[in-house]
Amino acid sequence: MPHITIESGKLTDEQKRTLVERLTAVSSEVMKIPPEFYSITIHEIDDASYGIGGKCIDLVKQEYMEKHS
Amino acid sequence: MPHITIESGKLTDEQKRTLVERLTAVSSEVMKIPPEFYSITIHEIDDASYGIGGKCIDLVKQEYMEKHS
Amino acid sequence: MPHITIESGKLTDEQKRTLVERLTAVSSEVMKIPPEFYSITIHEIDDASYGIGGKCIDLVKQEYMEKHS
Amino acid sequence: MPHITIESGKLTDEQKRTLVERLTAVSSEVMKIPPEFYSITIHEIDDASYGIGGKCIDLVKQEYMEKHS
Amino acid sequence: MPHITIESGKLTDEQKRTLVERLTAVSSEVMKIPPEFYSITIHEIDDASYGIGGKCIDLVKQEYMEKHS
Amino acid sequence: MPHITIESGKLTDEQKRTLVERLTAVSSEVMKIPPEFYSITIHEIDDASYGIGGKCIDLVKQEYMEKHS
Repeated sequence: MPHITIESGKLTDEQKRTLVERLTAVSSEVMKIPPEFYSITIHEIDDASYGIGGKCIDLVKQEYMEKHS
Repeated sequence: MPHITIESGKLTDEQKRTLVERLTAVSSEVMKIPPEFYSITIHEIDDASYGIGGKCIDLVKQEYMEKHS
Repeated sequence: MPHITIESGKLTDEQKRTLVERLTAVSSEVMKIPPEFYSITIHEIDDASYGIGGKCIDLVKQEYMEKHS
Repeated sequence: MPHITIESGKLTDEQKRTLVERLTAVSSEVMKIPPEFYSITIHEIDDASYGIGGKCIDLVKQEYMEKHS
Repeated sequence: MPHITIESGKLTDEQKRTLVERLTAVSSEVMKIPPEFYSITIHEIDDASYGIGGKCIDLVKQEYMEKHS
Repeated sequence: MPHITIESGKLTDEQKRTLVERLTAVSSEVMKIPPEFYSITIHEIDDASYGIGGKCIDLVKQEYMEKHS
């Protein structure tokens, strides 16, 4: 306890390490619970499986590229 | 806000686009919240990792095939 | 299978019934899986526990009211 | 690690204790990970917020009572 | 995108505001995604519904108090 | 209803089958709900995406190996 779940796009291992370290530190400080009690899972969702405002992100990116190429 | 998570089997990109589009439209209409506020994530779970009624779906499908071949 | 989770603000029972009915119908049609296989859970999150763009929604609403009163 | 989430109807504290104890024991045995590494959260969802086969459970129960009263 | 879910014990509104603000800022910096794209939900789980190492936290706290009173 | 989600490391198909079978049986017995109502999803999270106490598990394992080699 507590458990934090992150749904995001593709991340590098370096980004994941920094996120786990710093999100744990901030949460521990704010909740006054020792860091060792925290667990964090990162779910990398590909663009075709992530929708924002009714559109999948791969489509949003594709349209952006077509408009700006 | 709001955030919708879907756990399902393998889907085509076309199915995902249609789901994101239509689930956002229906939710937006019912909740009276503009579509751009919605996020949807789709987690494709393979059959060996999805259990129904105490059995993994790959096993259910396998037994079905054996019974009907 | 499949399972859909909705995190939203407070909803009426009528809204929940319509959401469950129509999201199941749309998903069933798109995924070609009979409706009886679907489960949907709705998590009503209060404004103070839902953050958008780094701010809790109760604060966003409060600031909006102050600005427009 | 690992983390188990349960979405269910209303449970007694006694049921929750037994679930946490026995699900941890079974998972620990099968995964060969010491029990102290496990965390379990139970989300009690009321019937009006849980849909099965396109219908909220409060409605399913209501119809059942009407039919059998 | 991205979406962060926190399962924790009871928190004050002040703690929630600080968490939402600072977790969004850290994630935005590390992932290089503007803060306005982030959504965070906080699920406050009561002690009787949160298990660690096979025991519900209300029981853990109760035993601690008995031992140290 | 109910729905159980497991976030864990890599598991064999055999482990997944046993988990689905036995977790469903235990939950069904404790909650007094027939097993066929249960659904379980297993999310296998790689070590670089799972943080415990502020550190990703791949790093924890790496440091352990260096210390004990």
